[in-house]
Amino acid sequence: AIDIERLMARLERLGQIGALPGGGVKRLALSPEDAEGRALVMRWMCDLGLEITTDVIGNCWGIRAGEEDGPPVLMGSHIDTVATGGLYDGSLGVLAGLEVIEALNAADARTRRPVAVAFFTNEEGARFAPDMMGSGVAQGALPLEEMLEVEGIDGVRLRDALAAIDAAGPAPVGALKPHSYLELHIEQGPVLETEELQIGVVTGVQGISWTEITVTGASAHAGTTPMALRHDAGAVAARIAVEAQQIAADHGPPQVATVGRLRVSPDLVNVVPQEAVMTVDLRHTDEATLQKAETRLWRAAQDFARTGGCAITRRTLARFEPVEFDPALVDSVEAAAHARGLGHRRMPSGAGHDAQMFAPNCPSAMIFVPSQDGVSHNIHEYTAPSDIAGGAQVLMDVVCQQAEL
Amino acid sequence: AIDIERLMARLERLGQIGALPGGGVKRLALSPEDAEGRALVMRWMCDLGLEITTDVIGNCWGIRAGEEDGPPVLMGSHIDTVATGGLYDGSLGVLAGLEVIEALNAADARTRRPVAVAFFTNEEGARFAPDMMGSGVAQGALPLEEMLEVEGIDGVRLRDALAAIDAAGPAPVGALKPHSYLELHIEQGPVLETEELQIGVVTGVQGISWTEITVTGASAHAGTTPMALRHDAGAVAARIAVEAQQIAADHGPPQVATVGRLRVSPDLVNVVPQEAVMTVDLRHTDEATLQKAETRLWRAAQDFARTGGCAITRRTLARFEPVEFDPALVDSVEAAAHARGLGHRRMPSGAGHDAQMFAPNCPSAMIFVPSQDGVSHNIHEYTAPSDIAGGAQVLMDVVCQQAEL
Ligand SMILES: NC(=O)NCCC(=O)O
Ligand SMILES: NC(=O)NCCC(=O)O
Repeated sequence: AIDIERLMARLERLGQIGALPGGGVKRLALSPEDAEGRALVMRWMCDLGLEITTDVIGNCWGIRAGEEDGPPVLMGSHIDTVATGGLYDGSLGVLAGLEVIEALNAADARTRRPVAVAFFTNEEGARFAPDMMGSGVAQGALPLEEMLEVEGIDGVRLRDALAAIDAAGPAPVGALKPHSYLELHIEQGPVLETEELQIGVVTGVQGISWTEITVTGASAHAGTTPMALRHDAGAVAARIAVEAQQIAADHGPPQVATVGRLRVSPDLVNVVPQEAVMTVDLRHTDEATLQKAETRLWRAAQDFARTGGCAITRRTLARFEPVEFDPALVDSVEAAAHARGLGHRRMPSGAGHDAQMFAPNCPSAMIFVPSQDGVSHNIHEYTAPSDIAGGAQVLMDVVCQQAEL
Repeated sequence: AIDIERLMARLERLGQIGALPGGGVKRLALSPEDAEGRALVMRWMCDLGLEITTDVIGNCWGIRAGEEDGPPVLMGSHIDTVATGGLYDGSLGVLAGLEVIEALNAADARTRRPVAVAFFTNEEGARFAPDMMGSGVAQGALPLEEMLEVEGIDGVRLRDALAAIDAAGPAPVGALKPHSYLELHIEQGPVLETEELQIGVVTGVQGISWTEITVTGASAHAGTTPMALRHDAGAVAARIAVEAQQIAADHGPPQVATVGRLRVSPDLVNVVPQEAVMTVDLRHTDEATLQKAETRLWRAAQDFARTGGCAITRRTLARFEPVEFDPALVDSVEAAAHARGLGHRRMPSGAGHDAQMFAPNCPSAMIFVPSQDGVSHNIHEYTAPSDIAGGAQVLMDVVCQQAEL
């Protein structure tokens, strides 16, 4: 059985790395803080006697041998965070995996299949787009060479960021072929808390569309340039941002739309902006509706640019279709929650997760636990220890089944 | 008479300081480039035999003695630029002043009154708000102590920026009391070019209102947070920016509205922005209409914040009422343009200028020359040498009258 104190202690300890003054944590992918986090988790893997492998993009996994050789039952998630992150997003899945293994060790339990725990590089996509990059490369969904050239928000290429903290190892793409994949994660939304449930049985992940839009106008004097003669890149960007909101309102839930990044240049009070760069994050569980949102947004953006006398270009930063998890494994999660007497419901995931990269290649599923106030990517992210314990126990139960204890 | 080659050579030389790779110049107030520009212009003042004074906020003027003592006829402008500036904005007025003095020297002309030329600190307001800061302090319109504490866009206080380049001198506020003030400047707008005129006889300056607005929401996950539960500071800011455009459209010319600065944080693709900081520049020749624009914008901004679940605050960065220049001096400018056979018209200024700070204290007026394509605060800012020659000649003619040659 799970030792919740041990698990909470590890969560607290990892949360000290990159801790923000006001609470929360900033451990952007491949930053010095991420390097420190990786070292700590690898040391824990060593202490638990796992056989550790690191691959070319810095994914890292530790295997506990089974009675037989063969593909392991894999638990995984990520330890990178956004710039205003909490202690639970990602870290929980990795550290719960360690706890499952420690519990197996403590019980001297022998499973038929190996059991493994992994953390994947740059799941957040906050520093380098797309998100789920490490697991996507490992599972063949994203091309390694292209990803190595991706430039981060700080202008550093992924290749150089990997080298800077020496994160890459010798294992090639495709080295990680699990028997099945399980990921425990905080919900990051309000559903479980609102319905007073302990476990989300995740049926799949909604589609994710990230686009970077660049509007190019001309800088001009804010006092002397008549409105009709302007090429105001910032004004065009603002209209696009408002349109994104409108699309979400018109489609209704589960459509969401977010302009997370927005910069104008030269960014001076009395200069009409000559350039605006923004990102639009659109998500929907239905691929056709997501495409409709993308099409409407881009048509409107082009219209606004035309009437605003600006040029406009776009670049896809991430695009993942909705994913369905393995029905049998989802059933197992549900049954485990039920057997433990935990209130549960089936639900899709609003956030992207490493699990969705494994789904096409092996039976995959996820377990959600409640997020207080539905808040994540925010320093106030919080999940109660009792809920964490429930989720970790369900993870352990399903892993033991899968590994044939 | 004016030597246009000599004047153009000085413009080119000063334009090399802070020159941008693609053309144009970046010489932000009190930057190292500004320091270099100041040193060059002061050397030129010395070479012309002027008696140089620098005041507590780094304004600098050089006086050519007249037959009598007493307040000088002052020509002035600024040599700081925005980040995407051209060679003419400000520099023209200063260097044409030097040219007038060189022409007087060359002719060994003796004026009854002293004639002086000045450059004022931080006219642009691009690094430190408000604009016209140096002339405003010198003329008692802006409080010195408060200005010294102003924080620039790079977080440096004006006091420290002055010290960093040793720009301040011993002369106190109020040391500069001219007999009259004249400023030659590029129009920075399209009117003169469109009407194929050589000289703008400037009747006054429109009112200027700069407000910084801060919207505070809460960071949240872009995938999991339903639209209805968001506190999206960026979405509120975008609506405010669109409303500013709408106010300008509804009021019609000469109303202008510009959101020149706009930043969201944490500025990550999958995080709902928790804060947005933006500036709104509103201008109108009519004070009552300008107030209407300000009131409407702020009401709408508060509404958007309320419906968007965000807090909102504002801070005035600059506020100048419309200014009327001295009718008799304006007549003199018009008569001089007429006498030189230059096509001219009366017009208000869309941009703020140091002249407006002198207007309450002494007869003040301005002369505009055409801006190609009406473009300024842009590296493509350009005025033809023949137009510059015309403007400088009119400046000289009026200065000689005022100084009683
Ligand atoms: N779980 C999570 O926050 N993933 C980051 C990728 C995203 O969904 O934006
Ligand atoms: N002339 C000029 O560009 N002044 C800067 C202040 C302003 O009008 O924005």
